[in-house]
Amino acid sequence: MPDPSIDPRWLTPPPLQGSYRSIFKWGAPGRSYHPRTGLVRLLCERMGLSPQSFSTPRNTGEAAVRNDLPATMDAVHVSAMADIVGKENVQCDDYARIRYAHGQAVEEILALRHERPRAAAGVVVHPRQREDVQAIVAYCHAQHIPLTVYGGGSSVTLGVTPARGGVTLVMQTHMRRLLAFNEANRTATVESGMMGPAYEALLNDAPARLRARHRYTCGHFPQSFEFSTVGGWVATLGAGQQSSYYGDIYDLVLGQKVVTPIGTFSTADYPATATGPKVNDIFKGSEGAFGVLTAATLKIFRLMPENRRRFAYLLPGWPQTIAAAREISQGEFGMPSVLRISDPEETEAALQLYGLGGRIGEYAERLLRLKGLLPMKRCLLIGQSDGERHFARNIARQSGRICRRLGALWLSGYPVDRWSHGRFLDPYMRDDLHDMGVLIDTLETAVTWDRLMQVHAGVRELIKARPQTLCMCHASHFYPQGTNLYFIFMTPMTGVDDFRRFQADIISRIVACGGSLSHHHGVGKLMGPWMDGHLGRAQVDVLRALKRHFDPHNIMNPGGTLGLDLH
Amino acid sequence: MPDPSIDPRWLTPPPLQGSYRSIFKWGAPGRSYHPRTGLVRLLCERMGLSPQSFSTPRNTGEAAVRNDLPATMDAVHVSAMADIVGKENVQCDDYARIRYAHGQAVEEILALRHERPRAAAGVVVHPRQREDVQAIVAYCHAQHIPLTVYGGGSSVTLGVTPARGGVTLVMQTHMRRLLAFNEANRTATVESGMMGPAYEALLNDAPARLRARHRYTCGHFPQSFEFSTVGGWVATLGAGQQSSYYGDIYDLVLGQKVVTPIGTFSTADYPATATGPKVNDIFKGSEGAFGVLTAATLKIFRLMPENRRRFAYLLPGWPQTIAAAREISQGEFGMPSVLRISDPEETEAALQLYGLGGRIGEYAERLLRLKGLLPMKRCLLIGQSDGERHFARNIARQSGRICRRLGALWLSGYPVDRWSHGRFLDPYMRDDLHDMGVLIDTLETAVTWDRLMQVHAGVRELIKARPQTLCMCHASHFYPQGTNLYFIFMTPMTGVDDFRRFQADIISRIVACGGSLSHHHGVGKLMGPWMDGHLGRAQVDVLRALKRHFDPHNIMNPGGTLGLDLH
Repeated sequence: MPDPSIDPRWLTPPPLQGSYRSIFKWGAPGRSYHPRTGLVRLLCERMGLSPQSFSTPRNTGEAAVRNDLPATMDAVHVSAMADIVGKENVQCDDYARIRYAHGQAVEEILALRHERPRAAAGVVVHPRQREDVQAIVAYCHAQHIPLTVYGGGSSVTLGVTPARGGVTLVMQTHMRRLLAFNEANRTATVESGMMGPAYEALLNDAPARLRARHRYTCGHFPQSFEFSTVGGWVATLGAGQQSSYYGDIYDLVLGQKVVTPIGTFSTADYPATATGPKVNDIFKGSEGAFGVLTAATLKIFRLMPENRRRFAYLLPGWPQTIAAAREISQGEFGMPSVLRISDPEETEAALQLYGLGGRIGEYAERLLRLKGLLPMKRCLLIGQSDGERHFARNIARQSGRICRRLGALWLSGYPVDRWSHGRFLDPYMRDDLHDMGVLIDTLETAVTWDRLMQVHAGVRELIKARPQTLCMCHASHFYPQGTNLYFIFMTPMTGVDDFRRFQADIISRIVACGGSLSHHHGVGKLMGPWMDGHLGRAQVDVLRALKRHFDPHNIMNPGGTLGLDLH
Repeated sequence: MPDPSIDPRWLTPPPLQGSYRSIFKWGAPGRSYHPRTGLVRLLCERMGLSPQSFSTPRNTGEAAVRNDLPATMDAVHVSAMADIVGKENVQCDDYARIRYAHGQAVEEILALRHERPRAAAGVVVHPRQREDVQAIVAYCHAQHIPLTVYGGGSSVTLGVTPARGGVTLVMQTHMRRLLAFNEANRTATVESGMMGPAYEALLNDAPARLRARHRYTCGHFPQSFEFSTVGGWVATLGAGQQSSYYGDIYDLVLGQKVVTPIGTFSTADYPATATGPKVNDIFKGSEGAFGVLTAATLKIFRLMPENRRRFAYLLPGWPQTIAAAREISQGEFGMPSVLRISDPEETEAALQLYGLGGRIGEYAERLLRLKGLLPMKRCLLIGQSDGERHFARNIARQSGRICRRLGALWLSGYPVDRWSHGRFLDPYMRDDLHDMGVLIDTLETAVTWDRLMQVHAGVRELIKARPQTLCMCHASHFYPQGTNLYFIFMTPMTGVDDFRRFQADIISRIVACGGSLSHHHGVGKLMGPWMDGHLGRAQVDVLRALKRHFDPHNIMNPGGTLGLDLH
């Protein structure tokens, strides 16, 4: 039923060039994807908000960035940068210094909404090639100038904050070339500033553009796919939405070229070796604290959409849903490329959004209840299989067999099509909700199967203890030994301090319940303070020893990255 | 046809207790597995040896170990060790000091055959539990006493050589317990001294012995399986014969407990994390140079032999065989657990051994030639699939489809049964051949697909340049990006110096052709001198920085391990 009382006044025009909003807005400037009426109704009901709450955007950050930053970089250094990369690739204006100093953490977004930037680069530099990076790193090392790397700018962990100013290197501007394509080895070597969609398009079109025999896919589709770089994926240990089959980025990277303060080197692309601890792996997840990744050699996969199978089931409860996902993950019939289970609260939101409104919805709802699939008990499981035709078909079949044995109702592949269609659009809704004073953010963790329930219950308890707060959770990266948990919370909130306290409480609760500090967002400067407590001082000291080795002057992404320089 | 002229006089009695032979003989003392007549005939033909060469064992090392070693360990230290572990767990006799100072490298075997041990421990200590290891490591650190770890003793890279004497820790004596079994997570936690067969038996019998719902397998079956420890697998980055499906040991280890000179710590068992470079992985392959591994948490898998499929094909040439293996590895229908391709020379030896002798053999040989499968061209491919029933069946089918398209003849599953039956017996033949002055040794490497042919041809060329030398090669660990190459050479040779020169030449050739220094044997002290040249000084310096961090006094397996302390 259309609800005339719900008439949100979303802010639709593209943000003005030069505005704070243009920095924090997710995605392409002119593109928007507003929350549906069903979602707004749900928010009003669950949060006890009046529909009028959605009529007045506030703290929208539409003002132009003020020109009042003090210069923090000596002119001689700025000129040295221009000597290396050409002056057209050096920026000292306030807008650039602020733009490339902020990622997509809510803390950063709120600061920009309040027109109070959290940080500013001393100077922004766009290297053209690896030799530029080598010269810049050598110069900064000699001059003890902090150096922060900016890839796609979608870090949610304050990874790109130039905490001590200095040089910010923007990789996406020029360093976005394919360096090698090796069809025999099924690998591609790309510069680290290559953006996700450009990389995927190149592989998809390999026959025409690379004279390949087949079409390929990179297999890595993080939520940030459209606005992240290959280098960012590697530096933060990302995982894509199809990681259960294709692997996390840790599995995908065979070789790297890195420029560190003490020198440049490349790791070889052997599929496996027994020549001691793997330096290639030591650089994965180093978050710019050891050096600058300039190129990576990654595994690629056949693109065979014709073999794809999609399936969705509704299960009677959360324990049965976890059991189904675990049995699928441990079934030894290969892994689905997409597997995603939603807890009861996320399931209700999904059902509301995907068709349980209106008259058909009422009928469907009655049917579900008759089958024992009760609201706030039932859970959604969606999946997709890829690979060779029989392989993909068998995964869908075996998954279905497991789900049905656990009391599931088959929902066809439609919910997966819907999810797939909207999967890169959902983040656009964040800015609309923030405009209306409804804060939405996410926190995530990795868990072993035996600790999944306690982490889920413990974190939910804390989040739900806040009044008017929604907490949805799903797991979407599966391994035989466990999975991740991805918590999405929504709550009326506008203050930065209030947010930071709440966020810190959630992180502490995740770790206290036995979850990892991060499954795929990385640590950045946001979660650095938890590192010693979570991994143990002895282990973080290993990373500190590596840091001292590569970066004796602590110029690389200093100021708390990975918690390395907090002592 | 039986050949009366071939009547080898194998040395059959078990080696005398206390003899040099008892140290180097492969496997259980009373067990032997002699080369078949067909193999001896082949060797005589190919090497131009007379059958009489096989009538007189020499350099058999049957003498008792002499008691003439000088004491190298201060009595006060020996007594300190006894205070920690009890004096029944401390050995100072010459036999123990020599036994635990030698692994299974041919250089070690030849030295013992000539009754000239290469090295001796100062004192041999058998820790009972982790606390013992902690106390021993702390003591040695404080006193600057070298410490070498001995697992199963099957290192072929001089990994257990106590190059500077000191304490040798024998892990297999007491530290062989299961610490945890987690069926929900599909993991087992075992002490590092657990031997392969004991570990596998425990998992196979999990319903009875661990009250599990299912039977399990560790999935890791290196050639050394029967005489290696879990800790040794991890420390040297081993790969099992079913690694193409189950993964190398690098993939199998989720968590470790390690005791280093600067402290003890455990890594968590999350299936994946994004909390910086993974300290768990940094310890894999550290070959005892950073600390002592006391326990590991490993993935386990369902044991489902009822689903197993075996297949074997004969292909018309080496290029077609490589193409078949590559297409299977890149087919995206899941990986066979066993996949093994033999080059033409290995294929001829296998066919001779497995039934192409005698009258039936002659007939079969004629048939093969008619089908274009010519001697010294044709190649054997064998495979096995495991996992869920339809999954395993599909792998066998798709593999067959690929092979047939490339001109293969189906050989049934019989050759795989034969291989499987003999796979842990083959090493027993080594001692028989050595007794007769025929040296057999192996060297291995990892290659990407595009460099496979050049490494194979280049290494073969060097080996075959030596007169009277057989060179067989197979690949048996597969990845979408490449594989390994395993070279077996046989040549009449008895001198240690001659052997070392030949071996060094082969290693240098492997690296020069673009192969890795090791796929799964590890580096040890044998290949340490090649590390800087192979990986580049910058990368080995990263390992040196880690070494300094964990082991500032260089007490852990010093004297060339991983090439860390050669400068």
